[in-house]
Amino acid sequence: MGKIPVAVLGATGMVGQKLVHLLRDHPSFELREVVASERSAARPYREAVNWKQEDFIPPGARDLIVKSTEERLESRILFSGLDASVAGAVEEAYARAGHVVVSNSRNHRMDPDVPLVIPEINHDHLALAASQPYKGAIITNSNCSTMFLAMALGPIHRELGIEAVHVTTMQAVTGAGYPGVSSVDILGNVVPYIGGEEEKMESEPLKILGRLDGGRVVPADFTISAQCNRVAVFDGHTEAVSLKLRTRARAEHVASLLAGFRGWPQEVGLPSAPERPIIVFDENDRPQPARDVWKERGMATCVGRIRPCPVFDIKMVVMGHNTIRGAAGAAILNAEAYLAKGYLDR
Amino acid sequence: MGKIPVAVLGATGMVGQKLVHLLRDHPSFELREVVASERSAARPYREAVNWKQEDFIPPGARDLIVKSTEERLESRILFSGLDASVAGAVEEAYARAGHVVVSNSRNHRMDPDVPLVIPEINHDHLALAASQPYKGAIITNSNCSTMFLAMALGPIHRELGIEAVHVTTMQAVTGAGYPGVSSVDILGNVVPYIGGEEEKMESEPLKILGRLDGGRVVPADFTISAQCNRVAVFDGHTEAVSLKLRTRARAEHVASLLAGFRGWPQEVGLPSAPERPIIVFDENDRPQPARDVWKERGMATCVGRIRPCPVFDIKMVVMGHNTIRGAAGAAILNAEAYLAKGYLDR
Amino acid sequence: MGKIPVAVLGATGMVGQKLVHLLRDHPSFELREVVASERSAARPYREAVNWKQEDFIPPGARDLIVKSTEERLESRILFSGLDASVAGAVEEAYARAGHVVVSNSRNHRMDPDVPLVIPEINHDHLALAASQPYKGAIITNSNCSTMFLAMALGPIHRELGIEAVHVTTMQAVTGAGYPGVSSVDILGNVVPYIGGEEEKMESEPLKILGRLDGGRVVPADFTISAQCNRVAVFDGHTEAVSLKLRTRARAEHVASLLAGFRGWPQEVGLPSAPERPIIVFDENDRPQPARDVWKERGMATCVGRIRPCPVFDIKMVVMGHNTIRGAAGAAILNAEAYLAKGYLDR
Amino acid sequence: MGKIPVAVLGATGMVGQKLVHLLRDHPSFELREVVASERSAARPYREAVNWKQEDFIPPGARDLIVKSTEERLESRILFSGLDASVAGAVEEAYARAGHVVVSNSRNHRMDPDVPLVIPEINHDHLALAASQPYKGAIITNSNCSTMFLAMALGPIHRELGIEAVHVTTMQAVTGAGYPGVSSVDILGNVVPYIGGEEEKMESEPLKILGRLDGGRVVPADFTISAQCNRVAVFDGHTEAVSLKLRTRARAEHVASLLAGFRGWPQEVGLPSAPERPIIVFDENDRPQPARDVWKERGMATCVGRIRPCPVFDIKMVVMGHNTIRGAAGAAILNAEAYLAKGYLDR
Repeated sequence: MGKIPVAVLGATGMVGQKLVHLLRDHPSFELREVVASERSAARPYREAVNWKQEDFIPPGARDLIVKSTEERLESRILFSGLDASVAGAVEEAYARAGHVVVSNSRNHRMDPDVPLVIPEINHDHLALAASQPYKGAIITNSNCSTMFLAMALGPIHRELGIEAVHVTTMQAVTGAGYPGVSSVDILGNVVPYIGGEEEKMESEPLKILGRLDGGRVVPADFTISAQCNRVAVFDGHTEAVSLKLRTRARAEHVASLLAGFRGWPQEVGLPSAPERPIIVFDENDRPQPARDVWKERGMATCVGRIRPCPVFDIKMVVMGHNTIRGAAGAAILNAEAYLAKGYLDR
Repeated sequence: MGKIPVAVLGATGMVGQKLVHLLRDHPSFELREVVASERSAARPYREAVNWKQEDFIPPGARDLIVKSTEERLESRILFSGLDASVAGAVEEAYARAGHVVVSNSRNHRMDPDVPLVIPEINHDHLALAASQPYKGAIITNSNCSTMFLAMALGPIHRELGIEAVHVTTMQAVTGAGYPGVSSVDILGNVVPYIGGEEEKMESEPLKILGRLDGGRVVPADFTISAQCNRVAVFDGHTEAVSLKLRTRARAEHVASLLAGFRGWPQEVGLPSAPERPIIVFDENDRPQPARDVWKERGMATCVGRIRPCPVFDIKMVVMGHNTIRGAAGAAILNAEAYLAKGYLDR
Repeated sequence: MGKIPVAVLGATGMVGQKLVHLLRDHPSFELREVVASERSAARPYREAVNWKQEDFIPPGARDLIVKSTEERLESRILFSGLDASVAGAVEEAYARAGHVVVSNSRNHRMDPDVPLVIPEINHDHLALAASQPYKGAIITNSNCSTMFLAMALGPIHRELGIEAVHVTTMQAVTGAGYPGVSSVDILGNVVPYIGGEEEKMESEPLKILGRLDGGRVVPADFTISAQCNRVAVFDGHTEAVSLKLRTRARAEHVASLLAGFRGWPQEVGLPSAPERPIIVFDENDRPQPARDVWKERGMATCVGRIRPCPVFDIKMVVMGHNTIRGAAGAAILNAEAYLAKGYLDR
Repeated sequence: MGKIPVAVLGATGMVGQKLVHLLRDHPSFELREVVASERSAARPYREAVNWKQEDFIPPGARDLIVKSTEERLESRILFSGLDASVAGAVEEAYARAGHVVVSNSRNHRMDPDVPLVIPEINHDHLALAASQPYKGAIITNSNCSTMFLAMALGPIHRELGIEAVHVTTMQAVTGAGYPGVSSVDILGNVVPYIGGEEEKMESEPLKILGRLDGGRVVPADFTISAQCNRVAVFDGHTEAVSLKLRTRARAEHVASLLAGFRGWPQEVGLPSAPERPIIVFDENDRPQPARDVWKERGMATCVGRIRPCPVFDIKMVVMGHNTIRGAAGAAILNAEAYLAKGYLDR
């Protein structure tokens, strides 16, 4: 059987570039189309893109002629790294035309019939897509900061129950795209505000950790308070988390719960699934973005400093690669999950 | 009346350099002696110090011959920026010999008879020093991270009562002295651990906000949970704070409480007292260390993003200059307070 | 006599902000008008500007209503920090209307009848302006990198004669304005290219060090080769320079030549003139931008490591504050020079 | 045939860690011994090392017991990342005892009978080792900054002849080891001095590009002037180079000379040899350390901006990975070269 033809929407952006990069040599998907704004359309990808990745542009992508978001596409699966200012309508149009849109954009994440999925945590939510009014479908992954929080909370919430969460993030500049954050603003600085980010972190994890019930998601019943900061880091979001649990547990128990966690993508062997979705560090000064962001090829959620909290129950540090596991890699894993469940041929 | 002769202990270190810098042209104090480890002793200060400040070494300090911590000193007041590994015994010895040691070191801060003072918050605690078994005295300022937290909590606790605090810090490298943090560890990175820092932040504010009762301090009765991180910032500690209050209050009320706050140092006009001890920002992305660290000549506590917290009551961002208000400037203000109360001549 | 009313063109940009900042409390000039693009016009300055300076917006500027570059202005002197894309025509129009335009933009610098001036080096070139076909005049300062190179070369060229120069720069991000350089491009990086910069550095110093002869400037007769790099520094351009001299000289001689240099602005006491226009460092690892950029309130040219060059004659490191002495401060000093020479009333 | 047992001297340092990292899965060498200072000796490597690499410690190295530099070793080849303060005597002692010491330390590089080798440029120099008075041998690679300069100069010197070179470096902090450069010194800064570095860059390339004649190396007969700076980059040294040629040539010719260059390691297929030892970039803002340092797994010399120089003949930018091609990878390639020539069994 041949590979499934796929496209990348927003292919010249930071997430789009990571998608193009990660799709080189993919066992199931073959990049056939790159799509971007009118400004880039009709030019070879190598000229349209301001390539920021460490490797060269994959040979199979260099000469693709960029299509505009108004053109018909031939690919079955469309990975979307579109900017939120345009993603809403474009993704809907393509879903209506029969494509499966695997989106990293925020626009449809909280729609009741759109699955917001981390395959290790709530792969069953993918079933939601069947109730969408489209010939195709839209499935989404979370905001990059949400990803690592929800992944770390998942196993804990399932076994012990979470009552409340305080989280303070220290986020990398690549999370804001390109040109994104001005160097004037971030060199030697901390910017204690990221527009819309706290709202996403306070709501998205509750949908992801929610329960599918009668064709809709009942959100998890706890409260999250988020404070989001931008720091002078290239890749890797770090999060300081405090948890109030419904069932008390020792830090050692939480650590072994997380270290031993394996999910459905690991069981069925999805190609992009990390062997260890959560890596727990014993060292007291880890994880660190500059040291640990590439663990499991950027697909790990790194957790450390799991210890008692004098105010709540447990404190810990969570970190992961914001444009891989937090964006492009998450989308590809979602597509693999969708394919593995046989939904693509539905 | 002439100026009071003062010395700086640990004068070659980062805090010591700031003390030397801030004491140039002081209206009440005159730097007469610089003291450092045996290695630096007997050399002119200009040669012994690896000067890291933006100005040149003050002319009055350049040619002072560095004394060792074992020598007798003639100055009435000794400002101590000594490393904690030696500060304990050295400071005691000098206090016993009749000097007033105004210390930035952690060693004696939590001693029951040692005042741990922020003059705007608990200047009355200075009275504790009278019960010390020394001919002189030891008075201390807090850890640099504690300073800004305690300053921001002070007016809130007095009026509304605090029940619990979550704080996550993003701390500058100068807080670790010199050479301190290796560039290999911090460039493009976040280190989610600072040895001993969380313990200090969880205890020192309770002493500062405590009540003097029968010659001892009854600590404030709330709980603090701290998570301390090092980031790639030169000067300026940023803190994300969530507060649970005993008396509910709107964010606007808390903001005006802080913006309007003036303390005893402002009333009596201590020379180093900032006109506004707390500056409240309306902009949603402030304060920022690279922009705001020099407000009030580095003596301000900058507060912003005061807003409701979905888990607790109030969230806010606190920031200040860790080696000025958080260390050297705090010590000098403490000495000014001690002098203004007439304790020096006791 | 009252102060001279002045305006800042491009007042919301990085150089414009520095001009507004430096003009607070100026002894001769009073900021009356702020001018910017159509987008900012008709709004109070405090709202139109994205203020990036360490101090608050000067009280006298906060409430000024921003004018557009098409409006008539009442000020005698217009300081221009306009973007080069619009500066050419706008500055000409205002000069024609009778204003003295003191410009930091590159557009007219190399025009034969426009003085390109560093008052310490070639204040006599200001006479050129008399031959301009305007009711007013245009006078310019150099590119920020040129400034420090030309200042350091000036005394050497006059006494020893220069034959050739190699210079490699390491330039701060503020030189590119705001938002300017993306953090994605510069965090932990060096970008070995700055558009148009090498051409400016290879030509502007020759005009500045040229000789006024019969109403025109005969450029200095040596050759410069420049390589320009952007580095992760906020303020302060560092330049590694190698010189081939016409008259051989020892490094010590060059050092004393530079350290002892004083120019006409120092003689006549222009308000913004640094006491020491060139500061020579003895330490082998200075000057450094993060340590020395504020020497002489940002108006110094810092020089260090003056030593023999195995290929040419002398090697040295030159550094200065790119938005003060390299831009806004240079423009203000030029206006002070123009005023001191009595040209304003011509 | 089994793999050759090898040891790493200075295995806990930055270069030592890179050696341990690169030797995992090597086709010809097997890491059997790790050697460090007395302080680390007798402890398992995983505990003795403060591991700073992105991957985990290779499983085969984790449990090795660290030996001291005074112990006998069983490995044939010893890779040395020892600090220069001890490398001289230790390396000699092991060479005398029969080991082949492949060293990254500076101590013996300029010894007349010690090969200083870049296999693509002067693999024939390895023959020098036969004249050493040791049962074993010492072979060395260059200083990290020298590496990229000599590699780029090699093909040019051979075909066109070089007469003079100006080079200004912008070097990464990992070049100084750990803890190495203090964050206080380098955040947002440029330090225009690296002790001993300019001397190495002005001499080592001449030996490498020299001619083997009658059992000794006649150094290349041109002059180099180097200015070395430290910048806030993690990995990757960038160098701005100007060349005076004996035979004039156009920039395009020099570019094609470098882009087409292949050496002996490429011909014989040494395992660590990059496919393209020199990568030439057409983009005008490349190479950049943060984008290009991993080209050819860190073994490439990246060259860009090849263009005419108004003072000399050709200007260009050279960049490479200082701890891979500039240190650990260079040593391993040297050992592979030594092995391929059959010298190991001599």
